[in-house]
Amino acid sequence: MNLFEDLAIPIIQAPMVGAVECDMVVAVSKAGGLGTLGCAAMSPDEIAAAARDIGSKTFAPFGLNLLITRPTKPSAQTLDAALECLRPWYERVGAPVPELPKRFAHDFSAQLAAVAKARPAIASFAFDILTREEMALLKGNGIKVMGTANSVAEALAWRDVGADFVCAQGFEAGGHRGAFLTAQDEALVGTLPLVATCLAAVDIPVIAAGGIMDGRGVAAALALGAAATQMGTAFLLADQSTANPVWKKALAESPPDATRLTRAISGRYARGIENDFMRDLRSVEKDVPAYPVQNRLTLALRAAATANGDPSVLSLWAGQAYPLARTGDAGEMVKAWWQEARETAKSLVARTR
Amino acid sequence: MNLFEDLAIPIIQAPMVGAVECDMVVAVSKAGGLGTLGCAAMSPDEIAAAARDIGSKTFAPFGLNLLITRPTKPSAQTLDAALECLRPWYERVGAPVPELPKRFAHDFSAQLAAVAKARPAIASFAFDILTREEMALLKGNGIKVMGTANSVAEALAWRDVGADFVCAQGFEAGGHRGAFLTAQDEALVGTLPLVATCLAAVDIPVIAAGGIMDGRGVAAALALGAAATQMGTAFLLADQSTANPVWKKALAESPPDATRLTRAISGRYARGIENDFMRDLRSVEKDVPAYPVQNRLTLALRAAATANGDPSVLSLWAGQAYPLARTGDAGEMVKAWWQEARETAKSLVARTR
Repeated sequence: MNLFEDLAIPIIQAPMVGAVECDMVVAVSKAGGLGTLGCAAMSPDEIAAAARDIGSKTFAPFGLNLLITRPTKPSAQTLDAALECLRPWYERVGAPVPELPKRFAHDFSAQLAAVAKARPAIASFAFDILTREEMALLKGNGIKVMGTANSVAEALAWRDVGADFVCAQGFEAGGHRGAFLTAQDEALVGTLPLVATCLAAVDIPVIAAGGIMDGRGVAAALALGAAATQMGTAFLLADQSTANPVWKKALAESPPDATRLTRAISGRYARGIENDFMRDLRSVEKDVPAYPVQNRLTLALRAAATANGDPSVLSLWAGQAYPLARTGDAGEMVKAWWQEARETAKSLVARTR
Repeated sequence: MNLFEDLAIPIIQAPMVGAVECDMVVAVSKAGGLGTLGCAAMSPDEIAAAARDIGSKTFAPFGLNLLITRPTKPSAQTLDAALECLRPWYERVGAPVPELPKRFAHDFSAQLAAVAKARPAIASFAFDILTREEMALLKGNGIKVMGTANSVAEALAWRDVGADFVCAQGFEAGGHRGAFLTAQDEALVGTLPLVATCLAAVDIPVIAAGGIMDGRGVAAALALGAAATQMGTAFLLADQSTANPVWKKALAESPPDATRLTRAISGRYARGIENDFMRDLRSVEKDVPAYPVQNRLTLALRAAATANGDPSVLSLWAGQAYPLARTGDAGEMVKAWWQEARETAKSLVARTR
């Protein structure tokens, strides 16, 4: 059962927190793709409001995404050490080292309940795996579930817990790695081999993510056997992208091959254009507290850097093919990519004759 | 000018030293692909003899490959330290620590002269870049040149020196990384983004290498815009593969996602199925002498491990999609992949209608 054949265009716009708001989701879904809203930083009420907003603007299916976080209680010593490490950076951006927050992330169960109630066509997840009870809550509300896998073992785990689709996130993808069974810095498999080996291992549709930037990439992923593609970086310069101008400038102007994986910004490995902060914390990044703690501790730092227009401290998430990101309306991009995929398919028939 | 359109099948069999001998090259070229012989470990006379052997068995074009090494003279201290590090491993396999060789690799200039004289259709190179004089020698003999790039900068360098084709070797590829401008452990770009960004940067045909295991992968690479694919791991279990039985067993039986990059075996980063030797030397691998020195120092170790049937010390080179490697005749495989690519193209037209 491949529901993506029901979509006019099998392109999922990736749920990039900080770059995607409702307008992007609406534009992509209206165009025939699947817009997805990243809800990790939203309260249950905000999730409900956003879903209502999208639903009021289009009948087309859309997705909501959550990052699975379980309650964590870092020791005072861990937190002190982490803040001490960040102190010179707070000084550099001219912001006070923040007070310790009461919580480091929204309560996942409450967020999940809000998603279940909002009834998107798809709910997608990363960073961990759902329990059978959580899965049943979503299925009971008629929601299809897509889990993120960085390895075949993770794809099998999502299949075993009843996911409808698995998103095979290649090493080249921008932003956070979804890994949860394999160490994040070990589960580094390219999109081509990951999609191919996942397809050989699981009997549910596999979605290809990582390194896909245009219609040729979409055609390549479908040729490989993917049911659809999930594209993130390709949307970062779109009209509807709410990525801040510093981030957009770095994407548009950096030379090729400038991304690296870092754990320093959030406590979870993520790919971005390398800057001073990533470089300088490289030798200690394995020691910073795990997501969401470090992510919360750097929040005010990143906000100050954004206000200062300073790319050296900011998270500049980007996939490896970021030099191919283009500007324009997100919906028109989706349609143009699909037209290009169609033309690519025709050329491929001629080429293989 | 895309000469790969003259090939019946745009599939290059990668020149894997230790796994490919003349029979494989002949089988692939006869089938309509491009067989390539890795000549790095061969003397000029051996190169001449091998080219004659291939040429006596087929009129079809074939390739010869060299790994560019420049003269190196490691200090006695470096060599002592390297051998000291290897001593427990030599003890483990029951072989004496070898005497220091007079030279660590064949003389590259002499090998190149032999390749020029042998006049293959294509000469391919990795590990460094040719000088203009070396390039002129090959061109003067009517040989097309393909350089290996791990980054856009390296693709541009090969174009600038006059290469006819550039092989974009993705992070997922098995065996040695070709990087020469970027640090080998920094030039880690997936095949999809590397091919796409190279195509946007250079005006010569780009060949896709890394993670391609079957006709779907071939179709995907061509859809992306590659002129051809280079496939290595996909041939390792072929009837004509001379990979030793220990290596073949590891390929056939290891669970997915078991490869890692290592510098410990040869002094150059290479991807293989992780074993004790790779794991144990991980913390010191940055300190071993650069290729070809370490490669030469571990030669007798690997030979003893092969004789013992011991996979824990051997180089088990493999690309990330090795679970998809299949057995069979190499020529028949090439034809079957091309038929699959053709069928994939037709399905893709239907899918994008």
